[in-house]
Amino acid sequence: MTVKRIHGVSVISLTPFTDSGEVDVKSLRSLLDFYLQAGVHGVTLLGIMGESNKVTERERDVIVRTAVEQVAGRVPVTVGCSAPGTFQTIEFVRRAEAMGADAVMVAPPPNLKNLNLVLDHYKRISDASDVPLVVQDEPTTTGVVLPPSFFTGVVEQVPTARYVKIEEAPTIMKVSRIHEATGGKLELFGGLGGVYFYEELQRGATGIMTGFAYPEILVRVYERFTAGEKDEARRYFYQYLPLIRFEAQLGVTGVAIRKETYKLRGAIASSHVRAPAPTVDAQTLAELADLVSFLGLNQR
Amino acid sequence: MTVKRIHGVSVISLTPFTDSGEVDVKSLRSLLDFYLQAGVHGVTLLGIMGESNKVTERERDVIVRTAVEQVAGRVPVTVGCSAPGTFQTIEFVRRAEAMGADAVMVAPPPNLKNLNLVLDHYKRISDASDVPLVVQDEPTTTGVVLPPSFFTGVVEQVPTARYVKIEEAPTIMKVSRIHEATGGKLELFGGLGGVYFYEELQRGATGIMTGFAYPEILVRVYERFTAGEKDEARRYFYQYLPLIRFEAQLGVTGVAIRKETYKLRGAIASSHVRAPAPTVDAQTLAELADLVSFLGLNQR
Amino acid sequence: MTVKRIHGVSVISLTPFTDSGEVDVKSLRSLLDFYLQAGVHGVTLLGIMGESNKVTERERDVIVRTAVEQVAGRVPVTVGCSAPGTFQTIEFVRRAEAMGADAVMVAPPPNLKNLNLVLDHYKRISDASDVPLVVQDEPTTTGVVLPPSFFTGVVEQVPTARYVKIEEAPTIMKVSRIHEATGGKLELFGGLGGVYFYEELQRGATGIMTGFAYPEILVRVYERFTAGEKDEARRYFYQYLPLIRFEAQLGVTGVAIRKETYKLRGAIASSHVRAPAPTVDAQTLAELADLVSFLGLNQR
Amino acid sequence: MTVKRIHGVSVISLTPFTDSGEVDVKSLRSLLDFYLQAGVHGVTLLGIMGESNKVTERERDVIVRTAVEQVAGRVPVTVGCSAPGTFQTIEFVRRAEAMGADAVMVAPPPNLKNLNLVLDHYKRISDASDVPLVVQDEPTTTGVVLPPSFFTGVVEQVPTARYVKIEEAPTIMKVSRIHEATGGKLELFGGLGGVYFYEELQRGATGIMTGFAYPEILVRVYERFTAGEKDEARRYFYQYLPLIRFEAQLGVTGVAIRKETYKLRGAIASSHVRAPAPTVDAQTLAELADLVSFLGLNQR
Repeated sequence: MTVKRIHGVSVISLTPFTDSGEVDVKSLRSLLDFYLQAGVHGVTLLGIMGESNKVTERERDVIVRTAVEQVAGRVPVTVGCSAPGTFQTIEFVRRAEAMGADAVMVAPPPNLKNLNLVLDHYKRISDASDVPLVVQDEPTTTGVVLPPSFFTGVVEQVPTARYVKIEEAPTIMKVSRIHEATGGKLELFGGLGGVYFYEELQRGATGIMTGFAYPEILVRVYERFTAGEKDEARRYFYQYLPLIRFEAQLGVTGVAIRKETYKLRGAIASSHVRAPAPTVDAQTLAELADLVSFLGLNQR
Repeated sequence: MTVKRIHGVSVISLTPFTDSGEVDVKSLRSLLDFYLQAGVHGVTLLGIMGESNKVTERERDVIVRTAVEQVAGRVPVTVGCSAPGTFQTIEFVRRAEAMGADAVMVAPPPNLKNLNLVLDHYKRISDASDVPLVVQDEPTTTGVVLPPSFFTGVVEQVPTARYVKIEEAPTIMKVSRIHEATGGKLELFGGLGGVYFYEELQRGATGIMTGFAYPEILVRVYERFTAGEKDEARRYFYQYLPLIRFEAQLGVTGVAIRKETYKLRGAIASSHVRAPAPTVDAQTLAELADLVSFLGLNQR
Repeated sequence: MTVKRIHGVSVISLTPFTDSGEVDVKSLRSLLDFYLQAGVHGVTLLGIMGESNKVTERERDVIVRTAVEQVAGRVPVTVGCSAPGTFQTIEFVRRAEAMGADAVMVAPPPNLKNLNLVLDHYKRISDASDVPLVVQDEPTTTGVVLPPSFFTGVVEQVPTARYVKIEEAPTIMKVSRIHEATGGKLELFGGLGGVYFYEELQRGATGIMTGFAYPEILVRVYERFTAGEKDEARRYFYQYLPLIRFEAQLGVTGVAIRKETYKLRGAIASSHVRAPAPTVDAQTLAELADLVSFLGLNQR
Repeated sequence: MTVKRIHGVSVISLTPFTDSGEVDVKSLRSLLDFYLQAGVHGVTLLGIMGESNKVTERERDVIVRTAVEQVAGRVPVTVGCSAPGTFQTIEFVRRAEAMGADAVMVAPPPNLKNLNLVLDHYKRISDASDVPLVVQDEPTTTGVVLPPSFFTGVVEQVPTARYVKIEEAPTIMKVSRIHEATGGKLELFGGLGGVYFYEELQRGATGIMTGFAYPEILVRVYERFTAGEKDEARRYFYQYLPLIRFEAQLGVTGVAIRKETYKLRGAIASSHVRAPAPTVDAQTLAELADLVSFLGLNQR
């Protein structure tokens, strides 16, 4: 089997629910098709934007199995496997691998300030499975700050680690610092909802993992950029920056605004978000619709 | 069915693992018998000290089923059901109820600072199951501080809530503040490893939930106290305070030191703690053995 | 004396230092003139962007006195007076008032989770001085989250409170929530480096307090907006959004990037930032220069 | 001038205020005499228990000058000089040195997660003054966790660093870890209100810095211990542990309970604590009085 390299826009997939709150497998299939029609280069299941910490383990299996089947090898599938304990994480990783995931993404266990224990967590995961590993650098939700030197240890001691997804602001500089600390041995993905995507690419990022609800825009930025048309990539990126920024305002809790958008775009049937979750007021949704129209996009 | 009232020492049970890291059902049975022989008035499974956030959902079922079976109605069984999302929590609660739990304990979802959402979480749980609910007031691990007024809302809007387990220091004053805010309508359990147990009882606590490895000491304190022999309860408590305090030094991560003790006492076969976990150095274990001997206790 | 109403762009002033790290009074004067030539409607001294927590009390006096003298009544001067204790805060407030400040801005004491104590802090300040008060809602640096209901208490119990500066993301919704909770009795300023300025105005914000290094852009957005030319305000805002966003990436620690810009613009002599402070790499500065040029602005 | 070595009980001095909230110089003098009569081996001004972050810089000078004068060389005087910025810290250090302090104590700047910047902070302090430095390892209030390896860097790069005051629980193990990481080149002081003092000494601590209101008890423990009478030290320590633990329950905010005690003991005139501060309820004070009496101590 050839390992598929992840690059470009590996969209963080939503997890669609029905209005009554059950996993909506049909909407997951249509959503994945929507992403692929938008041209994404990969999909990432069960990230924060996929409400990964609000699904049961049984549901996790359903989601991963459905996604792998629906994507059907068209692009690489990455599966978020973060858990507070190493034992569960390894179980999630092995199941994801067995179900056909191309890569797994793991954030540090919450509030684990002892970085030796964090590194050990990744080493044990690497010992337990050969599936390529994305280290998720996500201090906002984990409370764990990973200095660039941490990634030197990752290169030396975690053989399956191949990627880093960076959420620590400013991501632009973190891209450079990790690149230096690892001698370029890890491929780096930007984040923060895409707000700094052009600059992340300029710094050498391999792509981005984000849940932005108009992924076709980021796809075009990436493709113009890698085709050598940097100015065109930049102009296009700046043109839609008002929208990228608007969606990003809720940070890691912005799932509600994105579900509304994907529902309007016809990709999912319900915008249900699992509790507890902050709500988005009607005015925000009206502002979003107005902004989409102002930018000449079609909300459907 | 009569609802069993929880009171006294409802020991937070460890979750024993084998040396290779699997759930050790046999040791769980012998540990529960050990607790009951020590005279505990209840057992609480899958608390922090039970490494609840490091077991899989499948293991959770094994642990609860084994415990209910082994305890066999001798004392009430409380099951920790905390999860980041309301959906999972309700699933855990319903399964615990179905397996025969007498009560469930739920902490606020991690880092949920919006207390309206926290209260809504408890309301939904109460809507979904009739099993008595212990609200776990545990700011250290959740990052959520619950002011006394929060519990007024609990009394008004969460009908199944009957108990609060208090871990916010100083627990002594928190006992009084919640008592005042709720008009005594919730029964309160102390925590912090038992370090303030006598004073918590003086303030009106119904008992304590803690993982202290010599529960027979707390049982005797409670029984002397409720028999009206307060001075005897106090003297006895202070006599063993050096040990209670020693165990408590690691706070919520003190499971390692307690597993070592229970292994030495013959209650479990292995002191394995699931990763990631801080280790206890050999000197601490030697100090513990020395202290136990100094106090005239038998480590076996 | 007539109380000057604060509105529009009340720029958060930098505190210029010499290359050797002393307060540079001459640069402070030229910087203030620069702000006024850019058309700002107010200046705010000793905010986070003014390195307020890194100056001594003696320096604080020098800065306030210089600013009031240099501004000379042309626009209102607000002075940040936050401190861990109420006693110091009141001393800072009274000194600012005595030196001629038009308003004072005070954030909650760091990590004070008990909101009754936070409200009491503001009440005591209000008792001690008649100078109009800006409540700074800044959870990132203080660790204190203020729910909308807190501001109901402010309206009722803190007579001098007249404004709120909002830094809690998403500021757009927080503007609406505080407006509702206070019945419009407090005037609201946006923040987050200006990234959501147009939308904050749409929601009813009175203006913005931010340290963005091209304040003339925000001034023009505000003036077009208040002149009723909302679409023009919006187009202009979006045109320069790439720059606003770029500066904002460092969050509250972005003083270095702004000092470099103001130095290039000739407003201050040195870009010295007081330690400890994260540094900005050369590439970021090159990217900034390139972006300024790309947008057709002049860095000088 | 000979440098005085700090060892034993270097009590963290309260900062007495009058009932109206002003610094009470007369009470500071009587309090210092009280400490010295209790046999303390040193005094530490302007620690957390000294409400250091609630006094103005002018008051800081009054406190240090008074203390140095009153102690008059009888024991070493350490002065807390922590501040958010390096510039202020150095100013505080130099002023303390000029006023005759024997050592200064500095905690990391709040929330400074980049440990390279923390180490740089200490290097600059060391460059600026020759006064012996106590590194305060205090994660609870600073939010900065210092791993043992950090202290290796301190030994190598901060020539004036001679001591560490440890507040990170469990202090017992941290004593050993820092000792190993530094090859014994730094002398270590325990903390946590004295709750683990005997064990800290067993691990090689040089003494303790704490505000416990019966310092004569800790003095006796230390003196019996260093005289080789370890069992006697231990028995005595355990005898009064109920009280040590009771005072410690409020953690770093326990100044109120200690001011009440010192007022009852006649050492200070008022128990005024500067706002904002959590209050201690009447029942806690009654419990304290009862406990003191139960242990055969005299509250006066």
